[in-house]
Amino acid sequence: MSTDSLDVSGISIGILGGTGDQGKGLARRFAMAGHAVLIGSRSAERAAEAAAGLGLPARGADNATVAAEADVVIVAIPWEGHKSTLESLRAELAGKIVIDCVNPMGFDKQGAYALAVEEGSAAQQAAAVLPDSRVVAAFHHVSAVLLLDPEVTEVDLDVLVLGDDREATDTVQALAGQISGIRGVYAGRLRNAHQVEALTANLISINRRYKAHAGLRVTDV
Amino acid sequence: MSTDSLDVSGISIGILGGTGDQGKGLARRFAMAGHAVLIGSRSAERAAEAAAGLGLPARGADNATVAAEADVVIVAIPWEGHKSTLESLRAELAGKIVIDCVNPMGFDKQGAYALAVEEGSAAQQAAAVLPDSRVVAAFHHVSAVLLLDPEVTEVDLDVLVLGDDREATDTVQALAGQISGIRGVYAGRLRNAHQVEALTANLISINRRYKAHAGLRVTDV
Repeated sequence: MSTDSLDVSGISIGILGGTGDQGKGLARRFAMAGHAVLIGSRSAERAAEAAAGLGLPARGADNATVAAEADVVIVAIPWEGHKSTLESLRAELAGKIVIDCVNPMGFDKQGAYALAVEEGSAAQQAAAVLPDSRVVAAFHHVSAVLLLDPEVTEVDLDVLVLGDDREATDTVQALAGQISGIRGVYAGRLRNAHQVEALTANLISINRRYKAHAGLRVTDV
Repeated sequence: MSTDSLDVSGISIGILGGTGDQGKGLARRFAMAGHAVLIGSRSAERAAEAAAGLGLPARGADNATVAAEADVVIVAIPWEGHKSTLESLRAELAGKIVIDCVNPMGFDKQGAYALAVEEGSAAQQAAAVLPDSRVVAAFHHVSAVLLLDPEVTEVDLDVLVLGDDREATDTVQALAGQISGIRGVYAGRLRNAHQVEALTANLISINRRYKAHAGLRVTDV
């Protein structure tokens, strides 16, 4: 793929909500790949603790500092705070590639199910709230357990990358490819992000049935 | 997987809308696997033509005859006629496993997008219309081009199988496994079918970008 030739090695990566498992897992893998990583949290102190806990070069700061300083920003915050957090960071995130990996999900005794989102998806909500940012949807199906597992040297899955800005999706595909084992695959425009986010509910069902940490590979690509 | 041990070889398979590419492709692969296959269509004559065109043992008949005679029935009709066709076959389909593979999809100049469905998904609509049938959702992402291609001996993908009836989903997983290269993977309840159907829009985007016939494999299962 053409994105293989993009040099993204010097890009610094900020992770909003980087103290959660998903954020910490991505921080760990990007730090392993040699990227400058900034972990963000509402609390600068907890962010610094999470960064120190990685055992890899990474810094922690409050979300606003991370949003302002990082080249590319991953949104890994809980769905509950998604809209308000992004609204509060609009200025810091202007002009940047913002990668949304949030899965709006509900749980009941039958398992996980996708929540309806007024804007269509978390990624489309991010795009609506951040009109001056380049929003890309990616990293929805990456198991935090695998990302955080020191025994897992290769993360065996493709990251589906969605967005309306070709240069931005190419960059995110290349960034996904920085994580050992992972390949970034373009998978459509933002208007088709809902089903990718929602599919996480199916992966959770698969994980329960097969006692697995399931991911997806795209065949014939 | 436990479904590997299920003997489904004697099950006859009816395909409503079997004259379309998807239906014909599935008919071809199940006939190749040795199943008795009945191709259904509104027109018995066109169904018979499609069956004869396969060059494999298969019969054609009108949809009602196929629905009444086959052990398991696959719904591969266009979304436009989905509800009314199933309503008209409620009696014939009572008690049977009905496999819905319909993807409600719209197209515009930006490509494919998922249609909103009042019941949540085509599969849930089928379940609502056919309260006495055992509705399973499966075979959404199988490329008709690959199914129909005589050069393709192994179809390289997993079929996601969804449903609320364990015995029915086990049977459909085993049936999927009858097609060379394909594996059936349980992927949740019917309430999580929408995103699986909708993901076909993403696969169409992938196919355009990469000039591929993309499918999915589930990793770690």
